[in-house]
Amino acid sequence: MKVSLAEGSGFCFGVERAMDMAYKYAKEKKGKELYSFHEIIHNPQEVLRLEKAGAKHVDSIAAVKKGSSVIVSTHGITQKEEELLRDKCASVLDTTCPYVKKIHRIVKKLTAENYRVVIAGDAEHLEVKSILGYTAGNGVVVSSVKEINSLDMKEKTGIVSQTTQNAGTYNAIINGILEKAFLNRCAEVRVFNTICDATKNRQKATLELAKKSDIMVIVGGKNSANTRRLFEISAGILKDVYHVEGAKELKKSWFKGKKSAGVSAGASTPAGLIDEVVMKIRKIGDDK
Amino acid sequence: MKVSLAEGSGFCFGVERAMDMAYKYAKEKKGKELYSFHEIIHNPQEVLRLEKAGAKHVDSIAAVKKGSSVIVSTHGITQKEEELLRDKCASVLDTTCPYVKKIHRIVKKLTAENYRVVIAGDAEHLEVKSILGYTAGNGVVVSSVKEINSLDMKEKTGIVSQTTQNAGTYNAIINGILEKAFLNRCAEVRVFNTICDATKNRQKATLELAKKSDIMVIVGGKNSANTRRLFEISAGILKDVYHVEGAKELKKSWFKGKKSAGVSAGASTPAGLIDEVVMKIRKIGDDK
Repeated sequence: MKVSLAEGSGFCFGVERAMDMAYKYAKEKKGKELYSFHEIIHNPQEVLRLEKAGAKHVDSIAAVKKGSSVIVSTHGITQKEEELLRDKCASVLDTTCPYVKKIHRIVKKLTAENYRVVIAGDAEHLEVKSILGYTAGNGVVVSSVKEINSLDMKEKTGIVSQTTQNAGTYNAIINGILEKAFLNRCAEVRVFNTICDATKNRQKATLELAKKSDIMVIVGGKNSANTRRLFEISAGILKDVYHVEGAKELKKSWFKGKKSAGVSAGASTPAGLIDEVVMKIRKIGDDK
Repeated sequence: MKVSLAEGSGFCFGVERAMDMAYKYAKEKKGKELYSFHEIIHNPQEVLRLEKAGAKHVDSIAAVKKGSSVIVSTHGITQKEEELLRDKCASVLDTTCPYVKKIHRIVKKLTAENYRVVIAGDAEHLEVKSILGYTAGNGVVVSSVKEINSLDMKEKTGIVSQTTQNAGTYNAIINGILEKAFLNRCAEVRVFNTICDATKNRQKATLELAKKSDIMVIVGGKNSANTRRLFEISAGILKDVYHVEGAKELKKSWFKGKKSAGVSAGASTPAGLIDEVVMKIRKIGDDK
């Protein structure tokens, strides 16, 4: 069985940067009270690894001790959360991805200029919550075209997407909003191209690989939005698509009669994990 | 034969306003040297009527005598032309439609903020030429989706349409530009809803009437963009669609065997002309 890995699988620039920053910081703060506020990236193995380096993972500011140090997730946090952490902690390390930070700046400006901000993304995702926090209550999250129906339009609308959004979904949402805007005498719609290049390239490579494969295995955290989107993209092409967090979850039976297996992994999936999965699939192929 | 007139046919707010302003001005300037720079509206009868009121129609600034008075077309002129006229003339009456003026302001701002300005409209139309004049050489006119292929994209793009643009054409152009923008790493696309309400309502009423009619007669200047668009919209529904400038052009043979005739007219078509056409069609119907 042929096993191929999609180009651009694994850590992206933003994740690589955040992990480097976090470990350097953890070393500096060694022996001191250190927290990691929200999962640094959406990968359980990496969250554990950072805990072992001394940064306790917490999801509430109340759990952070006064005067301690804290690492902020690469997905970003709201303005309000940042203020609270800076008030409470002696030191804050912000690992927010620069592409997410750019969206924060865009929506802050749009909000100041009275645009209604629409965020195309997953309302439950940390990145989207952080972006929403910069809209001063004026923003709304839309995850699919269906949700546009209930959207309350204002005279000026600005649209951004989560950095890891599926390009097709984003285009459909933009078109739906433009149509509704023009029917509702909305004077202006401002569309920002905020899907990051790493996401676009990874999605494209995954789509191409799925077309050439009999089975696709997607590796990454189950709560990783960009990993789930790789699953959706592959599932649009193939019936046999599986999402695993590690090599242990792989089942021999999946590969019965398959001639080619494709592997792709999200931006938060460490290289070691991907390698393990690829090697295990190769072994299953050899054993057949 | 039933003869129906589409709602919103004839003079729109902007045309009504321009003609009122022009005749009041012509009265004031009686006996003095007075010009009408570019057709005040795209209707030959109305251009003649204004000439009879004392305003000579010219299409070049060179033809305007120094120290004279001049009436500016409701379609607007470029910044450069305005400067030249104000320099040369003792008095300038600007009848530019406020909806066109709004587009001038939008593209001027976009240009100052380094957006590439795309104007969805007819490059030969006075309104589009006037808008283009506010883009400092940075604007480009797109009349159909096909022309997007050769469009040179910049990092930021702003899109406006001629006030009388067909809404379907505008949507198709916007979608094409968005697609191209995202493929070319264009960071932002700003879309302005600049088709005027009078146009939208007239087009909608014409479409509905065409669906219920056996023949459609469109009344208005052959060089009137918004009148031609009513023709296109009707021709999308019916085979028997005719564009006339007046009742004289109507032919009995067109109405043979027809049970219902629809009439629609552009924003620059005077009510008297429309009435004549409707009455003549009624007479043809009665004679049958």
